[in-house]
Amino acid sequence: MRGVVLHAPGDVRVEQRPDPTIEQPTDAIIRVTASCVCGSDLWPYRGIEPVSQPAPMGHEYVGVVQEVGREVRTIKPGQFVIGSFWASDNTCEICRAGYQSSCVHRVLMGTIGTQAELARIPLAEGTLVATPEVPSDDLTPGLLAASDVLGTGWFGAVAADVQPGKTVAVVGDGAVGLLAVLAARQLGAERIVAMSRHEPRQKLALEFGATDIVTERGDDGVATIKELTDGLGAHSVIEAVGTQESMLQAIQSARPGGHVGFVGVAHGVELPGEVLFSSAVHLHGGPAPVRRFLPELIELISDRAIDPGRVFDLALPLDQAAEGYRAMDERRAIKTLLRP
Amino acid sequence: MRGVVLHAPGDVRVEQRPDPTIEQPTDAIIRVTASCVCGSDLWPYRGIEPVSQPAPMGHEYVGVVQEVGREVRTIKPGQFVIGSFWASDNTCEICRAGYQSSCVHRVLMGTIGTQAELARIPLAEGTLVATPEVPSDDLTPGLLAASDVLGTGWFGAVAADVQPGKTVAVVGDGAVGLLAVLAARQLGAERIVAMSRHEPRQKLALEFGATDIVTERGDDGVATIKELTDGLGAHSVIEAVGTQESMLQAIQSARPGGHVGFVGVAHGVELPGEVLFSSAVHLHGGPAPVRRFLPELIELISDRAIDPGRVFDLALPLDQAAEGYRAMDERRAIKTLLRP
Repeated sequence: MRGVVLHAPGDVRVEQRPDPTIEQPTDAIIRVTASCVCGSDLWPYRGIEPVSQPAPMGHEYVGVVQEVGREVRTIKPGQFVIGSFWASDNTCEICRAGYQSSCVHRVLMGTIGTQAELARIPLAEGTLVATPEVPSDDLTPGLLAASDVLGTGWFGAVAADVQPGKTVAVVGDGAVGLLAVLAARQLGAERIVAMSRHEPRQKLALEFGATDIVTERGDDGVATIKELTDGLGAHSVIEAVGTQESMLQAIQSARPGGHVGFVGVAHGVELPGEVLFSSAVHLHGGPAPVRRFLPELIELISDRAIDPGRVFDLALPLDQAAEGYRAMDERRAIKTLLRP
Repeated sequence: MRGVVLHAPGDVRVEQRPDPTIEQPTDAIIRVTASCVCGSDLWPYRGIEPVSQPAPMGHEYVGVVQEVGREVRTIKPGQFVIGSFWASDNTCEICRAGYQSSCVHRVLMGTIGTQAELARIPLAEGTLVATPEVPSDDLTPGLLAASDVLGTGWFGAVAADVQPGKTVAVVGDGAVGLLAVLAARQLGAERIVAMSRHEPRQKLALEFGATDIVTERGDDGVATIKELTDGLGAHSVIEAVGTQESMLQAIQSARPGGHVGFVGVAHGVELPGEVLFSSAVHLHGGPAPVRRFLPELIELISDRAIDPGRVFDLALPLDQAAEGYRAMDERRAIKTLLRP
C-alpha cells in the first residue's frame, strides 16, 4: 500500500509500505477513507522534534473496516468507523473515568501512520466508533475532524469548564483553537473571544460562534481580555498552542477561580509556581480523551448540527501529501485533508 | 500595645507598637484572644524571603470586637470573631464565586500583623465571621486553626476534589498537611495516605483520619503511592509544602484525570509543561479562600465534631514569641499558639 513517510525535516514522501496485518486478536484493519495533517505533525516536519529514522505519519482517520481479529465482535467488516490518536481498550478504570488517552493499554496511532491506504487499529472494540450506516461523502471532512481536532478542541472547552452564559477566551487560531470556539458555542458560552491576527481564521472563528476578535498577544492580549471582562478576566480560557507565551497568556487571561483548559502539546514550557499560585485558576489539559466525546460528536455531525469539516481548507490526493504539509507549514492552509 | 516585629532573619522581638485605629469606615478593631505562627512566617524568619525593614508579623487571629467603623453594621463590639489572612469585601463577583482571597478589594492581613494585642481588620463585614456567643476557652485553638491552617487544608482537599470513597494522598506533614488529612476524612475519602517521616506528625495524621503512612519521598514516594493504587495513582492529591520536589511528587502521584490541590506557597517552583501535559491531572490551588469555608468550619468546631486545635503543640504568652518561632523553625513544634 501507499503511505506517507517523513524521512527528515521537510522531507515528506509517499511510498510503498507493507500492507498491515492483524497482529493481535483485538486488532482491526481499515481501508482509510480520509486522513489529514495535524498541527503536531509539523513539530517533526520543522525539526523541532527530532526525526531519527524514517517515520510513518498520521494519526487521524476515518475508514471502512476490512478485517477484524478473532476477539473483535462489536466492530464488523464493512462498517464506517472513526477512531482517534490513542488506541484504548475503553474498559479500564482510567477509560471508564473518561481519560481514554491515558488508558493503561493505550497504543499511539502516530507510530502506526494513518496517512496511508490501510491502517491497523489496535484495541479496535475500544478505539473505534461505527456510524449506523456509511455516511454520505460530504460528511467525511466533519467526521474526520472528530478524530482529533474537533475532539481536542471540545476537550479544551470541557477542561476549561465552559458553561452557559459565561465568557470564554481562546488562545490559538489553528484548527484546534477554531474548533474550540465551535465547542464553546455548543456548550452555551455567551461571549467567545477568539485571539487571532489572521483574517481568514478570524472569519472562520466568527462563523463558528466567536463574538469578539482580539489581535493582541502576550501581556497586551491579557490586558485586552481584562478590559472586556470588567478587569476580572475570562471565566474559561482554552489554550491551543503549547508555547510558554501562550500558556502564560491563557493563565493570566482567566479570572481567579476561573478555568484554563490546555490542549496545545507543550514544547519547552516551564510554568512559574508563583504565577500559578497567585492566579488561583483551575488548570486541566493534556492529550485529549477524544474517545469520550466521539459518540456525541458523530451524532452532532451526522445531524448536520455542526460542520467542523470547514477547517479543511485544502483537500489533496494522498500522493500530494508533501504539498499538504508545505501549505500548513507556510500557513497557506489551516488544515489539509488527504484522500488515499 | 505589644506586638511581634521581625527585624531580620531570626530576630523576632515583642515591642510596643501604636494602638491601631479605625482608618476606613469599613474597619473594625479587635482585641486579639489568640494568634499563632504560620509556616509561611518561617520563610522571612529563615531569610528565604527578604526582610527589608522591621515587619509586624502574624495573619491568623480570633478575638473580640472592640470598635467598628461607621459603615460596619453586621459586626458589633463584644462579638467573638474569626477572620483570615486576606481581608475581603465578600460581595464582589470574585468573592461571590468563592474566591475571597482574590477579592478585588482585598487587603493582606500580614502587612497589619495580628501577633499583637490589638488588630485593625479592614472590610470587617466581609472579613469577619462572628460566633453566636463567646465560645468557651477550650474552643479557642480550634477556632484559631480555622483562621488559616484548617481553612487552607480544607481548601486543598476541596481543590483536590476529594470525594466519598476515593483515595487521597497528602504531601506535607506540617499543620496544613495534617489538617488536610482531617478535611479529607470529613469529606468522605475512603483511603487517606499521609506522606510523613516524623513520628509525632504521623501519629497526629492517623488520629485525624489517615489510613496509611508513606515515608518515602520524591520518585520513591510516587512509586509507593502507585503500588497502593493498582498502579494508577491517587484520585486526589493535596500538596502542602510548596517546593519543586513536592509539586512534582504530588502531580506524579495522581492518576490521569485525577486532581491535585496545591496550597503550599510556591517558592522557586518551575513546572515542566510536558510533565503537566502528559499527567492529564487537574491542578488547582493558590491562596486559600478561607472565608468561603469559615461558617461551616466554625460550626463543626463549635459542635466539637472536629478538633483541629490539636495541631497547636506549643502555647506561649505573646512575650515569648521568639521561642515560638524557634521551636517551629527547629521542628520541635508543629505550630505555636500565642496568647497576648
